[in-house]
Amino acid sequence: MGLVVQKYGGSSVADAESIKRVARRIVDTTKGGNQVVVVVSAMGDTTDDLRDLAQQVSPLPPARELDMLLTAGERISMALLAMAIHDLGHTARSYTGSQAGVITDSVHGKARIIDITPGRIRQALDDGAIAIVAGFQGVSQDTKEITTLGRGASDTTAVALAAALGADVCEIYTDVDGVFTADPRIVPSARRIARITSEEMLEMAACGTKVLHLRCVEYARRYQMPVHVRSSFSTREGTWVIDTPPDDKDGQTMEQAIISGVSHDRSEAKITVVGVPDLPGKAAAIFQAVARAEINIDMIVQNVSAAATALTDVSFTLPKTDGVIAMSTLEGIKDAVGFQSLQYDDQIGKVSLVGAGMRTHPGVSATFFEALADAGVNIEMISTSEIRISVVTRAADVDAAVRAVHTAFGLDAEETEAVVYGGTGR
Amino acid sequence: MGLVVQKYGGSSVADAESIKRVARRIVDTTKGGNQVVVVVSAMGDTTDDLRDLAQQVSPLPPARELDMLLTAGERISMALLAMAIHDLGHTARSYTGSQAGVITDSVHGKARIIDITPGRIRQALDDGAIAIVAGFQGVSQDTKEITTLGRGASDTTAVALAAALGADVCEIYTDVDGVFTADPRIVPSARRIARITSEEMLEMAACGTKVLHLRCVEYARRYQMPVHVRSSFSTREGTWVIDTPPDDKDGQTMEQAIISGVSHDRSEAKITVVGVPDLPGKAAAIFQAVARAEINIDMIVQNVSAAATALTDVSFTLPKTDGVIAMSTLEGIKDAVGFQSLQYDDQIGKVSLVGAGMRTHPGVSATFFEALADAGVNIEMISTSEIRISVVTRAADVDAAVRAVHTAFGLDAEETEAVVYGGTGR
Repeated sequence: MGLVVQKYGGSSVADAESIKRVARRIVDTTKGGNQVVVVVSAMGDTTDDLRDLAQQVSPLPPARELDMLLTAGERISMALLAMAIHDLGHTARSYTGSQAGVITDSVHGKARIIDITPGRIRQALDDGAIAIVAGFQGVSQDTKEITTLGRGASDTTAVALAAALGADVCEIYTDVDGVFTADPRIVPSARRIARITSEEMLEMAACGTKVLHLRCVEYARRYQMPVHVRSSFSTREGTWVIDTPPDDKDGQTMEQAIISGVSHDRSEAKITVVGVPDLPGKAAAIFQAVARAEINIDMIVQNVSAAATALTDVSFTLPKTDGVIAMSTLEGIKDAVGFQSLQYDDQIGKVSLVGAGMRTHPGVSATFFEALADAGVNIEMISTSEIRISVVTRAADVDAAVRAVHTAFGLDAEETEAVVYGGTGR
Repeated sequence: MGLVVQKYGGSSVADAESIKRVARRIVDTTKGGNQVVVVVSAMGDTTDDLRDLAQQVSPLPPARELDMLLTAGERISMALLAMAIHDLGHTARSYTGSQAGVITDSVHGKARIIDITPGRIRQALDDGAIAIVAGFQGVSQDTKEITTLGRGASDTTAVALAAALGADVCEIYTDVDGVFTADPRIVPSARRIARITSEEMLEMAACGTKVLHLRCVEYARRYQMPVHVRSSFSTREGTWVIDTPPDDKDGQTMEQAIISGVSHDRSEAKITVVGVPDLPGKAAAIFQAVARAEINIDMIVQNVSAAATALTDVSFTLPKTDGVIAMSTLEGIKDAVGFQSLQYDDQIGKVSLVGAGMRTHPGVSATFFEALADAGVNIEMISTSEIRISVVTRAADVDAAVRAVHTAFGLDAEETEAVVYGGTGR
């Protein structure tokens, strides 16, 4: 008998009929001889509707109360799911994040999981019940306040809970069939990836592949938890995120693709600090200020200094949502640092090629840049890791760049197999 | 400085605008130099909407999960109310029943409060914050499960919390101006009762006056907590439920009305057990069976036995909602008890006259029966207490009976003052 943790997103439990369908799927899993713990998001647009309500009452609601409000969403979906399972003749009990022992820090709105103490979940399983747990929420260690983990974090709840319970697998149900070699909306010939290492999945998630949340993959990697990303609308196999596949204990027979896939991201902007004195400590002052404003920067490029002026330009990318605060932060240190001006550009895109095979196969970057050149795509910034190459281009060039790279590395499928069902849940 | 507990029902917080209005009222109370704890119901029809959702998923949802689901309602309203207060520049923190220390028994759906341990509420007040508490919900002592107290129980939460905190007054905000001498929809000349003893209020609540919940009045009486029932739509004084009024410490100067008011109730049915052998233990067997089915019966009448047959009829009233289960329970003991048949009548009504002055003023019942007779109302059953007379009539005669009695005891106001704003919250 195995222990399976399943996570269903908001689009999988959008209404009463969807909830009943998910309930049948869960019951089928128990009939296969498994103990099942389910992590569930709020129904469909509930979270957005609650945010709208908050906005109607207060333009800047306190974070503690916003968390209290939003956690009502999973409370509703989890109770309804437990009822639907009960209606099929099986026992299910729902638990809030707090009841399930999801212990977090105190940062309302984007708390991080510190520990999971799933005593009540274990008890429910021992009693022969299916445990339903609210995703996205927890309770703070110090203040015992209700917290939320931020958008997309139900995946993280699921993997963390699976790790804490020593589950055999964590199944993430979504509205696509798994992780693809590229976004099927851009590349119709994109192929489903059957297996991917957590390292590669981490790079893809960080580079804009949205099927799995970055923190969730970090958890899976740290605790060596096999994750199976699959569609809640079909029974097909999805994508296994796993470092040693279950039928390949020695790691030898697995056919490792050189390239996993092509990711893209249009959510970033670029800031250029123009005319920075080329002196020690100036770049540090800029990035210290940005870090103090709690902004995560991604790529950084510093131009070669023009010897005549001893001035240089520093460019970096960051989430568009942090653009305003970053610009005002930098304005505040303009005189202290002595730079000339700031430029803000939100019409950029990032295209990344990810694959563990890069380590041993030379020439990957040559093929990558060649493909972009042939497609007429101009490269503005470059960043690489051991298993990834990323470039910044114009936002309008992203689609052409993704298609060109996907084809150049032989990733195109003979037949289109991707099916996209709709928006993703959180 | 005083400590005020205020309770707002669902109709008072039905939308964002109403919530902002209530927030202003709460802030005004603090400006008067008071510490304020607020108990709030779910917004408008939220509870009914959630019940509908449950029905769509499961025709007979497990009570534990239904409680989990329904408690999302107050979670939403309390967080929004805290935000609205925050937006006015004051600090407010919302607490679930569990967080506020509302400890109950384990009977999901109609749990009873066992204890209140309001440590976090006290801390919030000490910190200078307004505490917002979810009504209608608590946490079970033994199993630490989320419970609901049953419909109308937010009033009870408020009074119990006020007692536990040693508040100076518990204000129950509703959509009418207070408690009236009769239902203003039936008797337009009904008068607002300025003061009423908890004993009289108990009788009126038990007899169908719906402004205050019965258990709430029991709590107020037990803990000697002054309750002020008033409208959230005006600043007028409402009805004080208080055994010694605050400006009348010696209890001498208060002008005590002989009669408080006329209550009516159309929610009951009558069951008649026909042809019961007139032997010791037969009536006991009937009522033991009904009690085992957890049915609260109200009035009981046993006919004088016809000597020739040694058979008698036993009639009793009970909530219509318990009718089906009571009839099937009685069918099950028909042979054991040896009665002949059962009659079920749900076209009855109950009219009650309540007043502490009855104790010392003879002739009240004579006037009462005379008024009914003059109005052509037939009496089917009679029940009395020290301060109450109740009769069962045809349901269709209730309005005429209430008006006749109201007039006979001189309760009619010279001018109509009652304003009814809409449905009442729970």
